[in-house]
Amino acid sequence: MTIVVGFVPTKEGRAALHRAIEEARGRSTPLVVINSNRGSRDFDDETSRLAEEELRELTSGLGAEGVQVEVRQLVRGNEPAEDLIAVANETDADLIVIGLRRRTPVGKLILGSNAQRILLDAPCAVLAVKG
Amino acid sequence: MTIVVGFVPTKEGRAALHRAIEEARGRSTPLVVINSNRGSRDFDDETSRLAEEELRELTSGLGAEGVQVEVRQLVRGNEPAEDLIAVANETDADLIVIGLRRRTPVGKLILGSNAQRILLDAPCAVLAVKG
Repeated sequence: MTIVVGFVPTKEGRAALHRAIEEARGRSTPLVVINSNRGSRDFDDETSRLAEEELRELTSGLGAEGVQVEVRQLVRGNEPAEDLIAVANETDADLIVIGLRRRTPVGKLILGSNAQRILLDAPCAVLAVKG
Repeated sequence: MTIVVGFVPTKEGRAALHRAIEEARGRSTPLVVINSNRGSRDFDDETSRLAEEELRELTSGLGAEGVQVEVRQLVRGNEPAEDLIAVANETDADLIVIGLRRRTPVGKLILGSNAQRILLDAPCAVLAVKG
């Protein structure tokens, strides 16, 4: 059993990671963090490097606290939803944590296609947190 | 702090209630169950009565186990999403639990409007479980 979370260096990505760490600590369940920055068209090399550094900082020290964390770099060219669901299946996850953008006063927000797909296709429960 | 869940007598409604009870037990957080059957056009009197009985059975005995449960009948004529979010705000909820229909091999499933609205407008994290 694991908790699976995808990391992206945005407000909602950080909120998801923080909550996933909390859940892993509370349930004593290993955490699998998927770093989706590498190899994506949405990130240049510098952004990827900074995101990787940030992820290292956010997860370092967790082992010493008794939270088991594994970071996976996935460069398969898949949509993030596919990667998350594949890893959730493979690790027999009991929870996937995702971040959602907070609705702003201007402009109605609809659920992104990745979030919808994860919610519908996940083999386990999905915890959606706001950025 | 509370966990808020809406009860409907369907497979996904029961899955949501079961998971909400588990979470309330694990976090020692009071559970607020909203019975959305009463006063809804989707339920006739007999269905409402059976749902109420089922809900009573599912929640009775929880108090003795140390899980604090409050069942609220809401007959306001609101959409379920509105009721859930109003109660989550009022009770300073830290989690809302909702049930999603499992995707079937026939026919693509999209997220219902109530689920979308709860995910986007919730003041707290939302845990989505499959029926």
